Amino acid sequence: MKPTAPSSGINRRVLLSTLALLPALSGPLLPVSALAQTPGGLLPSWNEGPAKQAIFDFVRATIDRSSPSYVIPEDRVAVFDQDGTLWVEHPMYTQVVYCLERVPAVAAKRPELRNAEPFKTVLSGNREAIAKLSMRDLEKILAATLTGMSVEEFNAEAKKWLETARDPRWKRPYTELVYQPMLEVLRYLRDNAYKTYIVTGGGQDFVRVYADKVYGIPPEQVVGTAGGTKYGYGKDGKPFLTKEPKLILNDNNAGKPEGIHLMIGRRPYAAFGNSTGDRQMLEWTGAGAGARLKMLVLHDDAAREYAYGPAQGLPDSKVGTFTPALYGEAKSKGWTVISMKNDWKRIFAFE
Amino acid sequence: MKPTAPSSGINRRVLLSTLALLPALSGPLLPVSALAQTPGGLLPSWNEGPAKQAIFDFVRATIDRSSPSYVIPEDRVAVFDQDGTLWVEHPMYTQVVYCLERVPAVAAKRPELRNAEPFKTVLSGNREAIAKLSMRDLEKILAATLTGMSVEEFNAEAKKWLETARDPRWKRPYTELVYQPMLEVLRYLRDNAYKTYIVTGGGQDFVRVYADKVYGIPPEQVVGTAGGTKYGYGKDGKPFLTKEPKLILNDNNAGKPEGIHLMIGRRPYAAFGNSTGDRQMLEWTGAGAGARLKMLVLHDDAAREYAYGPAQGLPDSKVGTFTPALYGEAKSKGWTVISMKNDWKRIFAFE
Repeated sequence: MKPTAPSSGINRRVLLSTLALLPALSGPLLPVSALAQTPGGLLPSWNEGPAKQAIFDFVRATIDRSSPSYVIPEDRVAVFDQDGTLWVEHPMYTQVVYCLERVPAVAAKRPELRNAEPFKTVLSGNREAIAKLSMRDLEKILAATLTGMSVEEFNAEAKKWLETARDPRWKRPYTELVYQPMLEVLRYLRDNAYKTYIVTGGGQDFVRVYADKVYGIPPEQVVGTAGGTKYGYGKDGKPFLTKEPKLILNDNNAGKPEGIHLMIGRRPYAAFGNSTGDRQMLEWTGAGAGARLKMLVLHDDAAREYAYGPAQGLPDSKVGTFTPALYGEAKSKGWTVISMKNDWKRIFAFE
Repeated sequence: MKPTAPSSGINRRVLLSTLALLPALSGPLLPVSALAQTPGGLLPSWNEGPAKQAIFDFVRATIDRSSPSYVIPEDRVAVFDQDGTLWVEHPMYTQVVYCLERVPAVAAKRPELRNAEPFKTVLSGNREAIAKLSMRDLEKILAATLTGMSVEEFNAEAKKWLETARDPRWKRPYTELVYQPMLEVLRYLRDNAYKTYIVTGGGQDFVRVYADKVYGIPPEQVVGTAGGTKYGYGKDGKPFLTKEPKLILNDNNAGKPEGIHLMIGRRPYAAFGNSTGDRQMLEWTGAGAGARLKMLVLHDDAAREYAYGPAQGLPDSKVGTFTPALYGEAKSKGWTVISMKNDWKRIFAFE
C-alpha cells in the first residue's frame, strides 16, 4: 500500500517531518506573524476571505504559546471527511464506482451471481436501471465486492483499479480529483504539528490504499466505515485475515464522533466536512474548550466542479446532503462555510 | 488524560521527540554498531543473553540501510501486550481490581444492585466468594462499572482511582508496577523511529487513561478491548458520548491481529506478549517478510515478581496462560522467550 520509496526519498521525508516540528520549537524566536500571517506564501490556492482567514486565525491561536488557546503539540488533531471535502464525490462516490466495476470479476468467480439481482442488472450495463438500484441492492454489491477475500488481495485489487480507472468527466485517475486547496490545508496543519486524520463514511480499507500517497495520511490515521476481519490459516499453515461482511463501525453521522473516540481517543481541534454526515463530527469538535475550527465545503461551482446543496436549492439527489438545516446550524454556531467558487483560486493541481 | 505539561516541559518533550529521529537521519554518519551494539549504555536493566541480543539484532537489521531487512521508518510498528508483558498481572488484572472497587459507588447510585448478584457478593467483601465468581458474573460487573457514563466521567473516575489505589504486595500505585526492562525496550525502539502500540485484552479506554504518562504511548496508539459509545445531547444541547455495554472489539487471541488491522492497518515488525492471548498476534507478526521480532515474557521469578506458566508446570490458575503448547510453538517458530529471572537485571524502577 505504501509507494516504494528509494533511500534518498526516505531521507528527505524524515528530514521534512523533522523540520515540520521546527515552528513549534522556534516559537519564541520567530514572530508569530511570520508563521501564520503570510497569506502570499501559505495556502496559495485560496483567495483572501473569511475562510482563509479562519484557518490562519485558528492556527495562530493554537500554536502561539502566549495565546490563551494554545494547544500542546501532542493534542493537535485535525479530522477531514473525504468525499466532497477532500476529493470529488459527484456524480457517484468513487468507491461505489469501484464496487460496480468489480462485479464482472466477482461474477466470473461466482457464476451463481450472474442471474441473481442486483448483479444481473449491474452486468447488463443498463445505466438507467443501475441508477435505480435500492440501498439494499447496493449493500449486496458492496458485500460481494469488498469482502470474502484476504486483506492483501483486496489491497492489490483496489490499487490496480485506482491506477487504471478514469473519471469520465476529467479523463483522469480518481486520485487526481483531489482539491488542491485542501491539500494545502493538510500540509499547513501538519507543518504546525497537527496530526491529520481522514474520518470518512467510505470504506476504511479502501481509503487506506491511497491515502498516504494522495494525502500524506498513513493508514493508521484513516478512520472509516469498517467491517470485521477473520483470522485463519492457509493450507501452508500461514495465517491470514479475511474481510467479513460484518459491520463494525458505520462512520457516518453520529458514527463519526463515535469512530473518533474508538480510533483516536482524543477530541479534534479542527474538523472539515461538507454534508449532514459530518454534522455530529463538527458539533463534537466544536463542543471542546478553546479555539476549534469547524469548516464545511459548499459545492457551488458548476463550471469548475459541481453545484449542489443549498446553493442550488434542495433537496439534492444522491450525494452532498448539505441541507438548509445544516447551513442554518453552521450559521448559528459560527462554523465557516467554504465557497468553492469564491474561496478557491483553483480546484485541482492539474488545472 | 494527558499530564499537564508546563511550557518548559513541552519544549523539552518536542525536543526529545525531534532528537528521537536523529538515529534514523544520521544513519550514514554513525557506524551501525554505535547504535545497536552498545550493551553497556542501552537496555541497562537487561542481562547479556539471547533475549537482549535478539532485540539488538532486530533493530540493527531493520534500521541499517544496507541490510536486506531494512524497513523504512514509516513502516516501523511494534506492538506490546500489556498485562504480564508491560506490567504485573498477578494475582488479578488491575482493571478487574478497579471494577470490583467501583462496585460500592455504583451500588450507591443504583440501590437495586445491592441485593442482586453478583454485586451482593462483591459488596460482602468475602474474598473467597469473590474469587469464585464466574466469567458471566465478571461480565456483569464490568458492564455496570465501565459503561453507562460519559467518556469524560469514566476518564476522571479511572484517573482518580489510579492515583490512590495501591497494590497490596508492593504498597505502591499500580502504575509503578511496570517492568523497567520493557520501558527501556519501548524507548529504544522509539529512538529508532519505531511507533510503539499497546495491543491489550484490557479495556482500551482504561489503558488510555495512563498509557501516555506511564509508557509514553499516546491514546491513539492504544488498541484494546473496546465497547461502543453513543452520541447524544445534554439538556444544554451540548453533545457527549456515553459508554455502552456493546462489545465492538474483543482484543484477545485472534482478536489481536483483527484489532491491529482495524486500528493500525499495518502488520507489525515486532510483537511482545506473554500468554496464549498473544499467540495469534505473534504468528501474524512473524508471517510477514523480512526480520520480525517475536518475544514472550516468561514469569519465572517468584522472588522478585511471580512464577507461573510452564516454568511452574501447568495448568495455571486465572492469568498468564503461557501454556506448554505456546512454549512449544515459541520454540518451533524461533520466538524468543524472555526469562524474567535470567534476562532482567531488575524488574521495577523503584528497586
